Formats: sequence, structure tokens, C-alpha cells
Amino acid sequence: MAKDDKKEKNDSKPEKLIEEFGVEIARDVKAQKPPKFKTVARTRSNIIFDEKKGFLTVGRNMEERAFLNIAQTKRFMQTVAIATKCHKFIKENLHTSIRGLFYQLKYALGEDIDENIFNEQSESNPLIEDIEASLGVRREDLNLNATRRGVLAGNMKVMDTFGNERIEIDTSKMGRSGWAIPSDVDNDIKFVDVKAKYVLVVEKDAIWQRLNEDGFWKKENCILLSPQGQATRGTRRIIRKFADMGLPVYVFNDGDAWGWYIYWTIKTGSINLAYIGGDIATPEAKFLGITMADLEKYEFLKKMTLKANEVDLKRAQEMLDYPWINRHKEWVGELKQVLKLKQKLEQDTLQGPRLTFVGDYIREKIKEKNWLP
Amino acid sequence: MAKDDKKEKNDSKPEKLIEEFGVEIARDVKAQKPPKFKTVARTRSNIIFDEKKGFLTVGRNMEERAFLNIAQTKRFMQTVAIATKCHKFIKENLHTSIRGLFYQLKYALGEDIDENIFNEQSESNPLIEDIEASLGVRREDLNLNATRRGVLAGNMKVMDTFGNERIEIDTSKMGRSGWAIPSDVDNDIKFVDVKAKYVLVVEKDAIWQRLNEDGFWKKENCILLSPQGQATRGTRRIIRKFADMGLPVYVFNDGDAWGWYIYWTIKTGSINLAYIGGDIATPEAKFLGITMADLEKYEFLKKMTLKANEVDLKRAQEMLDYPWINRHKEWVGELKQVLKLKQKLEQDTLQGPRLTFVGDYIREKIKEKNWLP
Repeated sequence: MAKDDKKEKNDSKPEKLIEEFGVEIARDVKAQKPPKFKTVARTRSNIIFDEKKGFLTVGRNMEERAFLNIAQTKRFMQTVAIATKCHKFIKENLHTSIRGLFYQLKYALGEDIDENIFNEQSESNPLIEDIEASLGVRREDLNLNATRRGVLAGNMKVMDTFGNERIEIDTSKMGRSGWAIPSDVDNDIKFVDVKAKYVLVVEKDAIWQRLNEDGFWKKENCILLSPQGQATRGTRRIIRKFADMGLPVYVFNDGDAWGWYIYWTIKTGSINLAYIGGDIATPEAKFLGITMADLEKYEFLKKMTLKANEVDLKRAQEMLDYPWINRHKEWVGELKQVLKLKQKLEQDTLQGPRLTFVGDYIREKIKEKNWLP
Repeated sequence: MAKDDKKEKNDSKPEKLIEEFGVEIARDVKAQKPPKFKTVARTRSNIIFDEKKGFLTVGRNMEERAFLNIAQTKRFMQTVAIATKCHKFIKENLHTSIRGLFYQLKYALGEDIDENIFNEQSESNPLIEDIEASLGVRREDLNLNATRRGVLAGNMKVMDTFGNERIEIDTSKMGRSGWAIPSDVDNDIKFVDVKAKYVLVVEKDAIWQRLNEDGFWKKENCILLSPQGQATRGTRRIIRKFADMGLPVYVFNDGDAWGWYIYWTIKTGSINLAYIGGDIATPEAKFLGITMADLEKYEFLKKMTLKANEVDLKRAQEMLDYPWINRHKEWVGELKQVLKLKQKLEQDTLQGPRLTFVGDYIREKIKEKNWLP
């Protein structure tokens, strides 16, 4: 990053927000008032499904964290220590993981204090969320990298920064590998020349490789993306960003407990991350398949089904109870069919007749608008 | 891939080997002899540690697979079906996963037979290994992709092929993401302009990101590689290839059961893959750390240890029994220290004093040749 950018960065929002957070606490202390701060409650009772917006978010309940509440004193101190560390990371323009933060805290709490009060990382995780929810930022803005996973290819360029360098990455020139989606897709990174017309999310990396080899994204001019299993924060965020650019998002997963879960996490967000729901959920997403309804259309699939296991059936039943799912009659029909037939289908089955059939299936599904909401 | 290459590919070894495999069986049938083939035994008794070469490999025991052995008839037929499919994939110049192969077999066994004898993928896996071991090829040569995982950055270029295109990827221009190591690092892919002087393997992706941000590979002119956990076939193979280019390989892992396991798998290969040991093991690899011996050198680490759990202690004890480990007195000392102190260290601890200390530690260790064999 050039020096100018560094300055720009230093003036940016998260750093200032942490400073204000610290100033407030210092002001309380100086005024001999008990220091405290407020954060959004992340308890189940405050997590709601916003019907209009179509994602899981938090309600209006706030919680107070107070230094002079004996049950909270230690956690309050820890939270301030975490905020201090994150402020330092931002100023240094260096990133680390939550594990790295944990060891920094373990090494020395603050600049002068050397007290070994962080014994388990599990103690620091909810406190980071407290800060995120209190300041209205994401941990990625606090220079804390989350686990990354996921890959994409398509007609698009990434303007990344690396040390003092600006790097342009053409995601149509990544060969068999694709471009690995990073933890942070917001800070010091831009997506330009997005010529692709839609985003195709495929659950499994093996299917991504299959479609990539077929040049599917090139022929169809789409962004071909795989979360490589459950979508990480970074992958969910980049899908949201593509949707913000006006690109339709289609998801092609297994027709089982895990495939549905991955889809709904992308679409409506998740309970754990409801406090940043608006940043990572993509309610516009459609489920292309694979579905039980496909059994009628594609005759060969009838001999390709697998027995649904208990997890699949339990999950299908649970999903029928979620208001954000059972409001869609198409999903009710699909899930009831699973429960009736006690069978499931994997996306890999579409390689049965010939390896390239996967792409044909997707093309046809999109053309016929044959998807679930 | 250009047409010329396609032709080249069609003349290449694996395709011919499968054809010969088929011709032999057809010859037996025509001569009214019971068809059979030989493959390397992959039973425990035939897996040996080659002391001279320094890796796990298979001995000279061969096993026969015979069509007219009632216990083997079904498996024999399945093996021929798999070989037929792989031959087709190579001719089509298309790749798939083992799961994709499974569904192709499920769809239709051969061209004329439609018998649903493959019910579980577990049936096809050992048969693929039979073919690999019988023909002396790797499944990647049979156009079967294995799971991929792992990332790298460094002064090097990748010449990849994608459809009809040759693609040049500069792994020093991959920004925060790095280059994702593919499943197959041998066919239709080349590594050129390798200017890096050594390979640094770091177990955790979070540490890879930390060092990448510091520009470690640039300053030190190394290939910075993370297997992102256990090393896949592709990642082990690329490390082997770098060693073949004369690059020293240093591994920086956690000092626990999992970290040691990842190191030894890279160095000596594994029992499961002993039949391709020579292709994926890197006996030249050195273990930089993190070690119990570091506790003496780096004072601050003493307050950063974690309690070793049962898995760690059990593993340390087992490792002391392996002849390929206990022949190194340095490892015996290290493991005995773990068993005595009942403690362990994570590589992340090195971020304690400051985030950039990780790189300083590695530099110092290499400079002082302070590693375990």
C-alpha cells in the first residue's frame, strides 16, 4: 500500500470508532463514573427474520457491559484489551487471525499490564463479537482475518494491494486453480470490469473443477464460484457484493441436509452472524437444484438416488418449521417429497450420462427459470 | 489445449498402458484362458520403510486379480469397467473426481451393459488403487482429480493449460490470495522461472497469510506454501517437485500430534499412499519448529504453552516406536521432552510479542540451521 493510502486508511472508520469507544470509557473513568458500553444483544430472543428484507438480523434489544458489575468486570477488561490490540493492528496496517490476537493478549495484556487472564480462546471470541456489534463494524475491518475458503473464476478483475504494491488479478486467467476468495473482500481490494452476467455458486469444489474445465463460465459469461462446502464469511460477503452489482445469484448444491443448509446460509444468513446479516445475506439467491422434482424431468436420475439418512430427514422436517422457508410453497413441496420418498440426490449424479452434462443441466434450468426461491 | 497437444496427450503413457491392460485381458479371453492381472500388494506386510531412500514404499509382493476366482469376479469386472471409463476420460481430455467416476459407473457399466453393481463409492476406491499400482501410474494421470487444498506464493511462474489456451500465472502476483495448488501438478502444467531459493511450508493458512502480508517470500526469496492442514496428494507432489529442482524444503508446523503428523507425511509419505511413495515423499524436508527446545531459546514461550492432550501424548509415544523417526536422536529428544513436560506449543504463539515476529523466528532458525531432521 502506498503511503497516501496508509494515511487514508488511518483516517478511516473502524480506527476512529475504536478511538471513540476508548475515549468514552476514559471519560467515564475521569468523571469517576462507572465505565460501560452498549452492544446489540445476540441472544436468541433478539434474533429475528426480517420478512421484508428476507434475512436473519438482530432486533432492537441492547445489552450493557459494565465494569462495576462483578460478573462482567473481567470480560469488560478483556474487551478493552481486545479493542486496544485491534486499534494497534489497524495503525500498524497488519492483520492476524483470532488465534493470533489470543496469543497477543496472552503475551501481555495492554502495554503495561502483564496479567495472564486469557487462558482460552473461547473467552476472546464473544468479546470480539461484542466489539463488532457495538461499533457496527465487521472483524475484517478490525484487521482480524476469519477462516477463508472458496474459489472463483470469471470475467472480472481484482485490484488487490500487497505491501506497497497494487496488484491486478484477472480472474479469467487463473487456469485450473481459480482465484482463492480471501477473508476480507472489502478493505484495500476492489472488483472491477465485472463483465459476467450472473453468479453460479456450486457447493462442491469437484463440480467447480468440472465446470471450469468445460469453460462453463466463459461460454455463459458468469462468475463460477464454489464455497468449497459451507460458505465462509468472506465468500458470503463477496456473493452479497455481486448481488449489489445487480448480478443474479444461482446456487447449485446437493439435494440433502448439507446442500440445503449451505443454500439457506447464503440466502438468509445464519443465527450466529445475524448481527451482520445485512452484509452477508443474499435473499435474491435462487436454488437451481438438484431437487426431487428433477426426478420427473430427468429419467436417468431415478436410478441415481441415494437413501436419505436420518440427518437429511430430520433437517427436512426442521426446515418445514422455519417461517423463512415454509413461506415458499415450492420448498414445502420439495421437502415433503424428500420425506415421502426418503431419498436424496447429489449434484455429482449429473455426470452420469456424460461428464459435460452438468453444464447442460444448469443451462437448461436457468433458461427455463426452473428454480426454487 | 491446442490440437497438437491433444494428439501428444493421446499418445502419452497412461492411455497406452490402459490399452495394453485391456489387450492382455482380451487376449486371455480369446485364447479361452481365465483373464487375470497383477498388482502390487498394498497390505501392511508389503509396506516397508526404505531406509536408504527415506520413505514408505511397497515391497515386491504382487497379488493376482482373477476373473475366475469367485471371490474376485465382481471386483475384476468393476476394475475393467473403471479402466474403460478412465480410458474414455483421457481420450475426451476431460477430468472428473472419484465421485464423478462412481456415478458414471452407476449410470451404465460399460457401453452395452446396464447393471447397477456399484452401490457404494467405497467399492470403487480400492479398485482405482489396483489400477494405479498395476499400471504404475497415479490417478491424476487417469484424469481423476483428487481433493485439492493448499496455496503458495513466490518468485515462480506456472504454465497452465485451460481449454485451448495456454495460461501463464505469476505466483508473485497473487496478492492476498496466493495461488491455489491444483489436484494435478504434472499433466499439462509446468513450473518455470523458479527463482526462489527454498520452500517454506507452514501448516496453517492463517500463518501463511501473516507471512504473505509481511512479504516474507519476497524478502527471503522463497516459495511460501501452506498445505492448509494435512497435505493433499497434489500438495505433497508439488513439494517433491520443488525438491527435485534442488530447493531445500523447510516445514514450520505446530508442535503437536497434528503438526508432527503433517510433517512426517510430507517427509516420508504415508502408509495409504506407500504405493506412490517415491512420487510424493520428500525425505530431504527439515522441521523448523515449533519445538520444545524453543522454550530454552525464546524465554517468552514459557508462558505460552498449552497442556498437551491425550492425543498429543499418545502420538508422541507412538512416534518413538517408528523406526523412521526413532533413528533420529533429535526427534527422540524432542518427543521425550513433550512426554515429560506434558505441554505443547502452537506456531501461532510466535505472534505474541509482535505480529511480525513469526518471520524473524523462521529467519533465525534457518540461519542457525536450528532444525530437526
